[in-house]
Amino acid sequence: MSQFWSPLVHDLTPYVPGEQPKIDNLIKLNTNENPYPPSPRVLTAIAEQTNEKLRLYPDPNGDLLKASIAKYHGVDSSEVFVGNGSDEVLAHAFQALLKQDEPLLFPDITYSFYPVYCGLYGIDYRTVPLDENFCLKVADYQRPCGAIIFPNPNAPTGRLLPLDAVRQLLEMHPNRVVVVDEAYVDFGGQSAIGLIKDYPNLLVCQTLSKSRSLAGLRVGFAVGQAHLIEALERVKNSFNSYPLDRLALFGASASFDDEDYFQRGCQKIIATREVLTAAMQQMGFKVIPSAANFIFATHPQKSAADLAQQLRERKILVRYFNKPRIDQYLRITIGTDAETQALIKALSEITA
Amino acid sequence: MSQFWSPLVHDLTPYVPGEQPKIDNLIKLNTNENPYPPSPRVLTAIAEQTNEKLRLYPDPNGDLLKASIAKYHGVDSSEVFVGNGSDEVLAHAFQALLKQDEPLLFPDITYSFYPVYCGLYGIDYRTVPLDENFCLKVADYQRPCGAIIFPNPNAPTGRLLPLDAVRQLLEMHPNRVVVVDEAYVDFGGQSAIGLIKDYPNLLVCQTLSKSRSLAGLRVGFAVGQAHLIEALERVKNSFNSYPLDRLALFGASASFDDEDYFQRGCQKIIATREVLTAAMQQMGFKVIPSAANFIFATHPQKSAADLAQQLRERKILVRYFNKPRIDQYLRITIGTDAETQALIKALSEITA
Repeated sequence: MSQFWSPLVHDLTPYVPGEQPKIDNLIKLNTNENPYPPSPRVLTAIAEQTNEKLRLYPDPNGDLLKASIAKYHGVDSSEVFVGNGSDEVLAHAFQALLKQDEPLLFPDITYSFYPVYCGLYGIDYRTVPLDENFCLKVADYQRPCGAIIFPNPNAPTGRLLPLDAVRQLLEMHPNRVVVVDEAYVDFGGQSAIGLIKDYPNLLVCQTLSKSRSLAGLRVGFAVGQAHLIEALERVKNSFNSYPLDRLALFGASASFDDEDYFQRGCQKIIATREVLTAAMQQMGFKVIPSAANFIFATHPQKSAADLAQQLRERKILVRYFNKPRIDQYLRITIGTDAETQALIKALSEITA
Repeated sequence: MSQFWSPLVHDLTPYVPGEQPKIDNLIKLNTNENPYPPSPRVLTAIAEQTNEKLRLYPDPNGDLLKASIAKYHGVDSSEVFVGNGSDEVLAHAFQALLKQDEPLLFPDITYSFYPVYCGLYGIDYRTVPLDENFCLKVADYQRPCGAIIFPNPNAPTGRLLPLDAVRQLLEMHPNRVVVVDEAYVDFGGQSAIGLIKDYPNLLVCQTLSKSRSLAGLRVGFAVGQAHLIEALERVKNSFNSYPLDRLALFGASASFDDEDYFQRGCQKIIATREVLTAAMQQMGFKVIPSAANFIFATHPQKSAADLAQQLRERKILVRYFNKPRIDQYLRITIGTDAETQALIKALSEITA
């Protein structure tokens, strides 16, 4: 607290990211990172750009990366926005599109950065409760609103909303922007990007942090009709001309050139997720069906906070949220097969 | 214009960065980049981090880089904030510290991003005219205000305000934040960082883009007492947890380990600046005394817009601002000696 702060700052409740511990030999299953390295092509592209050209500003528009994403997703470059991780893309979307006179709607259990953005930009919002199985009920969004946002699959539950339901939401509010935050869609969901040509109110956000193993490079993007992208560009160009450095632009672009590697990586994680789910169900856990690179699970007899603490003592880090409705759940990132076996062994011992 | 935009977006006038042309063999003197490469230690540090660890999030607090900056400038890590270029650092400062009930003050001729940030965050501001020699007159700031910001040396003039005058401003408004934007200070100015221990209202911003040849890596920072830094952290953590990627954190940190390289680079640019200044004065240009890596100059007989155009035809790019009071000036970045000789030759021919 300081007399020098802008009035806004006093009231902010900043987001708290998952811990990035500086401890060796941890099994780190707490921040939904990919256990496998990025494509070798990404590393090669970065190495090629690690040269004297770093003295020059990057392309402020990121045209190279926009072209790669546009080609990959079959859209026009004018329908692509790129930013410093999908968190920055989302921040701009909140300011550029989701701040309206009527309140923004999002699920009560969702990515916990959403209410933080609302605080930063003074956006009025209402949360819409998920049902008892953590499913989003489209009918509950039939109410006056300024805009809608939700992750699909949802976080931290991993639940997927079928595309038909996404379409219903878009048609229910044709004059309201609907942002679908697809950070985890590559692990079993179907992207709504294919719908953008039909829905001028749809913006889809994705990230390279999860399925493309590039959390450390900070690249996210949004796809929507050009008028929505223009709003994001106007805010971005009023904030920071060059949010993506040269290495991120080239590295991220190369990631879209290695489809085999990408597909194999996603399939490995899906397979491991199913192994972990089955093993945990055998131990008595209730596991929410997941289309993400994590699972959300609760044990009928064991406190989630205790489980998290006991795992930590065994050098296994998972995410625990001390929040209403989900304080008996753990969110566990899918690691390698070896990490998963170590986790299963630890959980068996703890729950025995 | 779209029905889906937030009301704010309609009124934004985004910043227009200097052109980043995709043309070979240009002599590019338009965006104040450093003509010399970054330290080899920076490239080595980046290469060492170009590995499978890119799958992991970077340290959200950037502790490694904060420690390097703190050590270099003799301050505590809690007095350092890091961001994605000084543009992002400035953006957060506008929202966290400069948005007050009374208007923000800055010079009428200054970094043209300042009014853009004001538009983005709804900040009321007044410009204070520089004198006829583009000097900032401290006495003109003796008026009610919410905060003050100015570049030192100023942009695009290159004029330095002596530290005594900075101190006068700080003491004139002890209850108002004063941000000194030192993007160019390493080319002949004296930093105000040494004053932060005495002035709780002082925030100093710097960048690695100019004097450390890292425009392509996107790293800037601010130094001030911990209560000011906390305001920036609160806004940053409500916007994007990880604005600096792994490569930027390690590369930027390494830059502070190579003082000899840094000092030699700055000295070379200062020497070339003096050569260019003398040569242009000989051609009849009036050159504003510069403490930056650019000069700001006008010719009594030649239109600045025409000069810029004729230089462009000779594949030399300089910056021209079509704005009141400065529309007869060119801002010319200091290049290599060879680039500078080519520029001198071209200007001699054009003005002959």
